[in-house]
Amino acid sequence: MKIALVGIGKIARDQHVPAIADSPDWELAATCSNHGTVEGIEAHKDFGAMLAARPDIQVISLCLPPVPRFAYAAQAIAAGRHVMLEKPPGATLSECHALEEMARAKGVTLYASWHSRAAAQVQAAKAWLKDKTLRSLNVTWKEDVRRWHPGQDWIFEAGGLGVFDPGINALSIMTEILPDPIHVTGAELDFPENRETPIAARVAFFHPKGAEVTMDMDFLQTGEQIWSMEAVTDQGTLSLHKGGAVLENDGKDVADASGVNLSLKGEYPVLYAHMAELVRAGRSDVDLAPMRHVADAFTLGRRLTVAPFDW
Amino acid sequence: MKIALVGIGKIARDQHVPAIADSPDWELAATCSNHGTVEGIEAHKDFGAMLAARPDIQVISLCLPPVPRFAYAAQAIAAGRHVMLEKPPGATLSECHALEEMARAKGVTLYASWHSRAAAQVQAAKAWLKDKTLRSLNVTWKEDVRRWHPGQDWIFEAGGLGVFDPGINALSIMTEILPDPIHVTGAELDFPENRETPIAARVAFFHPKGAEVTMDMDFLQTGEQIWSMEAVTDQGTLSLHKGGAVLENDGKDVADASGVNLSLKGEYPVLYAHMAELVRAGRSDVDLAPMRHVADAFTLGRRLTVAPFDW
Repeated sequence: MKIALVGIGKIARDQHVPAIADSPDWELAATCSNHGTVEGIEAHKDFGAMLAARPDIQVISLCLPPVPRFAYAAQAIAAGRHVMLEKPPGATLSECHALEEMARAKGVTLYASWHSRAAAQVQAAKAWLKDKTLRSLNVTWKEDVRRWHPGQDWIFEAGGLGVFDPGINALSIMTEILPDPIHVTGAELDFPENRETPIAARVAFFHPKGAEVTMDMDFLQTGEQIWSMEAVTDQGTLSLHKGGAVLENDGKDVADASGVNLSLKGEYPVLYAHMAELVRAGRSDVDLAPMRHVADAFTLGRRLTVAPFDW
Repeated sequence: MKIALVGIGKIARDQHVPAIADSPDWELAATCSNHGTVEGIEAHKDFGAMLAARPDIQVISLCLPPVPRFAYAAQAIAAGRHVMLEKPPGATLSECHALEEMARAKGVTLYASWHSRAAAQVQAAKAWLKDKTLRSLNVTWKEDVRRWHPGQDWIFEAGGLGVFDPGINALSIMTEILPDPIHVTGAELDFPENRETPIAARVAFFHPKGAEVTMDMDFLQTGEQIWSMEAVTDQGTLSLHKGGAVLENDGKDVADASGVNLSLKGEYPVLYAHMAELVRAGRSDVDLAPMRHVADAFTLGRRLTVAPFDW
C-alpha cells in the first residue's frame, strides 16, 4: 500500500522512514513538509496539491507537532484517505473526538498510535500484572530535553505539552498494563517563567483497589536517562526500564516473560503493521485515555513557577 | 421515588431542595452533609451508614464540589443506587469515564446533569440555529464571584475550575445548540498570584465551517452580570441572555421561539424530571463535551499571572 509521510522532522527520519522502508506492507510514495525531504522520494510542500495529484496514495501518516495536526488530518479524511497519527493524536481531546467522527462518517481508518505501547516488554508486563494485586506503581520519566528535543520550541509553546510530551508515553504504557482504571487526584506542574508548558511534573492517581500510583517527570535530567516504572504487587515486584524495552521481575532481568519478543522489531514497525491490519479490516483505533490523563493533570494541577529555560 | 441529597450547601438549598419538593416524581427522604441539614428531613453525616440504614432510597443526588464527588458516586453505585451529579460531573474526565463504566457494570443510572441546558430558551436557540450558516458565536460570561460564590474557597483551589465553574455552563449551552463540533484552539488564563485556578479567561475555538467562535469569562464583574451569547448567521442574529433564559432574534425579544416555554418550570425541575425518566427507562446520560473543552483550555492555555484575589 502506498503511504505519504507529512512532517519530515526528527521523529520521521529516526523512526517512520526506516519502519516504512523495512515493511512488507508499505511503500513510501511521497512526503509533504515545509523543510524536510527524504532522498529519492517525491516531495511536496502543498498538502492539498499532493492529495489532488496522488489519488493512488490511500494512507497518510502525520508526524507533525500536535497543534497543526488537526487541519491536515481533517483534510486527508475529507479527501477519503486513511490517517495515522503520531502521539499525542492532537492538541485537544475535542478535536480527536471530531476526527474520530469524521473518519466514521467517511468510512476511513483513523489510528491514534502510541509508540510506547509497542515497546518490547509492555505486553509481558500486562500479562504478568493481570492476576496480581497491585500495591503501588511508581513511574519515573526523566530525560534531557536538550538531548532528545534539541531546539524544538513547539514543545514549550502552549499546546506542546512540555514534559508531558514524553510523559504521555509513560501514561500510554500505564493505561495499557494496569487492569483497573486510574484517575489523577493531584499534580504539581513546574512552569519555567519564560515558557508556556511544564518542564517537570509530579502526578498522583487514584487506584480503585487502593494502590499508590505516582508519576515523576523531569525534562532537565542529565547523566542517566530514566524511563522506568516499578509495580509492587502481592506476588513480587515488576519493573519496566528503557521505556518498556526491559522487564525485571524481583530485580532479575527477564528477557521476555511473554514468549513474544517484540524488541526484535522495534516500536514503529509494530505500529505500521497494526495500521496495515486496521486498513485491511476497515477499522479505527483511537484510545484517548493517555491524553485524557494529561488534560486532567493540567486541569487539576497546581502551577509552580520555576527558573527560565533556554536551549 | 425516594431520593437523598448529599452536600447541603448553597446550590442544594437554592435549587435542589425546592425542585424536589415541587416534583411529583420525588420524595426527599434523607440528606447527608458535614454541615448542612434540611428542616424536617432525616439528616446523616456518614454516607456509608446512610446507605446501609436506608436501602429504600434508590437514588442519590450529589451536590458536593467536584473534587470529593467521585468517592461518593463510586460508593453509591457500588451500593446499587442510581446517581445524579451536579455539574461538572467530576474533577477529572477520567473519573467520569470510570463512573460511567461502573454504572454500566452495576446496571444503575448515572446522570451527569448540566443545569444550563435546561434554561428556558436553549432548545429554541438550538432549533433556530439548526438550518442557519453560522458566521460567529461570541460568548460573554461575566459575574461577580463575591456575590455568587461568597467564601467558596474550593472554587480557587486546584480542581475547582475557577471562572470555568460558571464558564462550563456556557459551554454546556454552546455544545447543545451548535450543530457542528468545535474545539479549543487557544486560551489565555488569568491566574491570581495567590490562587490555583483562573479568575478570568479568553478562549478561541475552531469551527468546521469557519465561523469565529470565542468566549470571554470574568469572575470580577461588578454592576450588570452578563451570561450572554450572540450567534451571527446568514439569516440574522440570535442572542441568548441571562444564562439561556431570554432569547432575542435580531434584537427583538422573543418570549419563546419554540412554542415550549420551559422557564415556567425553571432549570432544576427539568433536571429532576429527566432523572426520573432515566431511572424508569434504565438509561444513563453522561455527556462530557463541556468538561472536555474546559480540560482542553487548561491544556492549551497560556497562563498569565494577575493580581491576588481575596474575598
